[in-house]
Parts: sequence; structure tokens; C-alpha cells
Amino acid sequence: MLTLIYLIAITAEAMTGALAAGRRNMDIFGVTVIAFLTALGGGTVRDIVLGRYPIGWTQHPEYVGLVVAGGLAAVFVARYMKRLSRVFLVLDALGLIAFTIIGCGVAQSMDYHPVVVVMAGMITGIAGGILRDVLCNRVPVVFRQELYASVSFAVALLYLGLIKLGVPHDLNVLASFAVGLAIRLAAIWREWRLPVFMYRHDLH
Amino acid sequence: MLTLIYLIAITAEAMTGALAAGRRNMDIFGVTVIAFLTALGGGTVRDIVLGRYPIGWTQHPEYVGLVVAGGLAAVFVARYMKRLSRVFLVLDALGLIAFTIIGCGVAQSMDYHPVVVVMAGMITGIAGGILRDVLCNRVPVVFRQELYASVSFAVALLYLGLIKLGVPHDLNVLASFAVGLAIRLAAIWREWRLPVFMYRHDLH
Amino acid sequence: MLTLIYLIAITAEAMTGALAAGRRNMDIFGVTVIAFLTALGGGTVRDIVLGRYPIGWTQHPEYVGLVVAGGLAAVFVARYMKRLSRVFLVLDALGLIAFTIIGCGVAQSMDYHPVVVVMAGMITGIAGGILRDVLCNRVPVVFRQELYASVSFAVALLYLGLIKLGVPHDLNVLASFAVGLAIRLAAIWREWRLPVFMYRHDLH
Repeated sequence: MLTLIYLIAITAEAMTGALAAGRRNMDIFGVTVIAFLTALGGGTVRDIVLGRYPIGWTQHPEYVGLVVAGGLAAVFVARYMKRLSRVFLVLDALGLIAFTIIGCGVAQSMDYHPVVVVMAGMITGIAGGILRDVLCNRVPVVFRQELYASVSFAVALLYLGLIKLGVPHDLNVLASFAVGLAIRLAAIWREWRLPVFMYRHDLH
Repeated sequence: MLTLIYLIAITAEAMTGALAAGRRNMDIFGVTVIAFLTALGGGTVRDIVLGRYPIGWTQHPEYVGLVVAGGLAAVFVARYMKRLSRVFLVLDALGLIAFTIIGCGVAQSMDYHPVVVVMAGMITGIAGGILRDVLCNRVPVVFRQELYASVSFAVALLYLGLIKLGVPHDLNVLASFAVGLAIRLAAIWREWRLPVFMYRHDLH
Repeated sequence: MLTLIYLIAITAEAMTGALAAGRRNMDIFGVTVIAFLTALGGGTVRDIVLGRYPIGWTQHPEYVGLVVAGGLAAVFVARYMKRLSRVFLVLDALGLIAFTIIGCGVAQSMDYHPVVVVMAGMITGIAGGILRDVLCNRVPVVFRQELYASVSFAVALLYLGLIKLGVPHDLNVLASFAVGLAIRLAAIWREWRLPVFMYRHDLH
């Protein structure tokens, strides 16, 4: 089931990535690249940082096909996506949680320290969006919007904690999704944000 | 001969990278870094993604010397480069094709799936220019200009197809250069572009 | 002693990174990421380029804790940091030199070519600041400000040269710090810069 959610999530991420590319008037090649990086960039950065070769998607060319198709499809259905924005927010939240759990699992299976396991989960969850924003030449929204990375952090902690407590894996995944989704949707609904740090001067 | 074209191409790429740095008023260190990344960044990203260590240029410090020299030379001959812009467009096209063929070959020799082989060729061809543009703080031109990544894509497909058909390697390389160069120069001349995706709304 | 300077330096780098994030009005998660990348990003890029796995900080989660704490602390003491700007400039210079020496040592222990050893030192010294600036959506200051990367370059050359001459390692490190600090502080004081390359035209 985690795999199914993962496949739906990377398709949804690819589609929202395509819209970001469209906001920069990119051509369909640019759309494809941004869709790919938004969907699969997080896992790529995680694998590179952990030294896990071969990188995930290189062994699953069907994932590449899926996100490219999703990105191109978004061009055609863009006019309807605004109306579906709530659906996409939910899919994006599901993706964030799935990516986080999968990323934690990868680092754990390589015997990394729990601190690195949590970071691997968060990298998988948010690095794709950071790459998308860097290539679209803007400050990553994940550094400024309502709770997003924090959801990934909370899910990673919860997932690791429940493993430590010996909770069965299926139940653990279910609890992580329930809690993660609840926090994320509440954060969108109530506009929960982390405190912002404003600084005016140049140090130098 | 592919090696000779490669050496000419990385020098030419380094020189055009230096001009991009000059447009941002960088100092000669910045010029050197941008020249290096424009010329050798694509191969670096490819090697990191494929997990091919040691990375190419670390075993060829003479390439590093060549691109640094090319970048610094561009500062001195900058005033003449506008007049030579057609020459550089041809050298850049040759480089794009050479990078693509070399990148495909690297991934193939590591037994990656054909989808990854094509992507490795394209990464080698275009990632250097993307790094240059990100460090110069602009949206990568490869996502917006006339056919460029598409040339890399076409060359990669043709090259793999001709291998499959059992065409001798020399003839294959020759055909790939002929077709690639023809498409690229025609694209510049006739301003062929991919369809552009324009999108106005914020999804979120 | 190099380790002690290293720990002080990554904390100071994390704090200055946090201020850069504050200038972009990031939330405290963004502050944490920028602090982390400013302090440990250079070593991360070096390890990835050299293929040295596992990456340094993954084996030292206490470093991650230190830079996160430093970044968050900067939010609270930001108002005092302007007054301490000279202290931070010195700490930053010490960090640049320590990072360079450590980076050279890593590449040397992997038997890379001297050209790559020098580059590894420089990457360790400056790539963190480049990542910080890219994520803050600006052209990296290291490409434009008074002598900085050049200090890293000079220190790397001196350090390698003294090893070649058989100078004892402690003395070598001491000399590298003395010379590096002298150049860097003089450069700040006298505003020494590399020549700037200004270029107006689009090649294409």
C-alpha cells in the first residue's frame, strides 16, 4: 500500500512541479525536467548523500516514465487543476509522509545513526521541492510556508519511536499517516507557521 | 576523434561560461568556477548520479587546466567573441553532441537500462549549462530557448538505435554528429522551439 | 587543535548562515537548513565529489546537533552579532583555513592528484557558502567579494608545498594558519579584490 501511495504521490508531485515550470514559461522540456526533479529529486539527493548506489529510479525506469507522463499531462489539464487544488494538497501531504517513511527506511537499512535516519526521511520529503524552486529561481517555499518540513520531522520521529516501541510495521505506517495528515491539513487550514526570523543588517 | 572534439568542446564551453560570469560582474575566481562547471559540470553530475567513481576529471587534471585556461583566456578575448559567435554556436553544438554520445557510452558500460542511458547522455550534455545558470541566479536557458535538450535527446536515441542495429561505431558517431548538428543549426536558424507552457495561477 | 578550531568554525559558520536566512525572512526550519548547509555543506560536496562514503557528518551526529544549535542560537543573539562582526570575520577566516587544510588532507589520503587535492581543499572551504547563497536566491558572494577563495587557494598550495618540503605537520598547520589569516584580514582591511570581469553582450 505504501508503494501505491508512493506511485500516486510521485505523479501528483510531478504535476504540481509542471505547474511551477509553467509559471516560469518554460517549454515542455523544462516542464519535464522540473516534474522529474520535484517527484524524484528528493530520493536522488538522499541516495547520493547516503551513498546508496544504484540510485532508486535508475532501477525503476517505469517511475521515470510515470513522472514524465504526469508532468506532460499537467500541461493539458492545467485549467482544471485549480479546481482540484484541494485534492492535490491532500495528495501532496500523502506524498510527503510516504517519502519520509520510505527515506527513513532506506537510511535505517544502511545502519545509519537515528539522527541521519530522520534527516534522510526529511531529505526524501522536501529536497525535490527545493530543487524545483532553485531551478525556478526562487527562495524555496518550504523555508517559508505553513508547517511542511515540520510534518516530515514529526512523522520521522513518530515512525522511529514506534519502531523502538515494537509496534508492528503496518500499524506504525498507518499511525504515521494519520498523525502526519492531521498535522499537515490542520496547518493548511489554520495557517500554522513556524516563527519567522527577520534580520536586516549585513554582518559584513 | 571524439576525444579531440571533446577537448575543443570543453574549452569552448568554458569560454562561453566565462562570458556568463562576466555578465554578472564576477571576479576572475568566479569566472574560473563558472567556466569549470559549464564545461565539466555535466560529466560530474552524470558520474555522481550513476555512482561512477572516481569522477572523470579527477583522473584528468589536464582537463581542469584546459578549462581554467579557456575561462581566463575568454576574459582577454571577450571583445572578439561576439564577432566569433557563429563559430562558438557550432562548437557548442559539437560539444552538446560529443557530451551526449560520451555520456550514453558511460552509462552503457555500467549496464544501466536504456532509459537511464539516454538520461545520462542528456545530463552530460546539458547539466553544465544548468549549473552555470543556477550560480548566475537565472532560470536555466535550456528550459526556454530554441531546440537544445531535444537535440541531445534525438542524438541519444539515434546513437542507441544504431548500436542496436549493429552499425559500426565510427559510422554511428559520424551519423549522430551529422544529424545532431543539422537539427541544432536548423533550430538556431529557423528559431525552432518546443511548445511553451504558460501558467498563471498559484495552485496553493 | 585543528579539531577544536573546526568545531568553533562550523558553529560560527552556522550562525552567519542563519543571519543570511533571516535576511530572506525564512522560518526557523529554513534557518536550520541554511545553517547546516553553510557549515557542513562544503564537506558534503567534497565527499560526494571524491566518492568518500559515508559522508563525514553522518558519522558525527554531534556535529549536526552543534550546527543546528548554533543556527537557532543566532536567532536569539542576532541583535548582538553586528557588534561582534569583527569576531565573526576572524572566526570565519579561521574556518576557511581549517576547512581547506582538512579538505586537502581528505583528498590526499585517497591518493588523488595534487590538482584535485587543492580543489578538494577549496571546495571544503567555499562550497558551503555557495549553497547558502543559491538557496537564498542570490549570486554567491564568494564570486565577487574581497579575497576569499584566493585565501583558500593560497593556503592549499602552501600546505601541500610544506608537506613536499618535509616540514613537520604541526608546524605546517601553524604556518598555513598564520599566512592564511594574514592574507584574509589584510584583504578585508585593505579591500583587496581580484580583477572583475564585466561583459555586456549576449553571445547568442
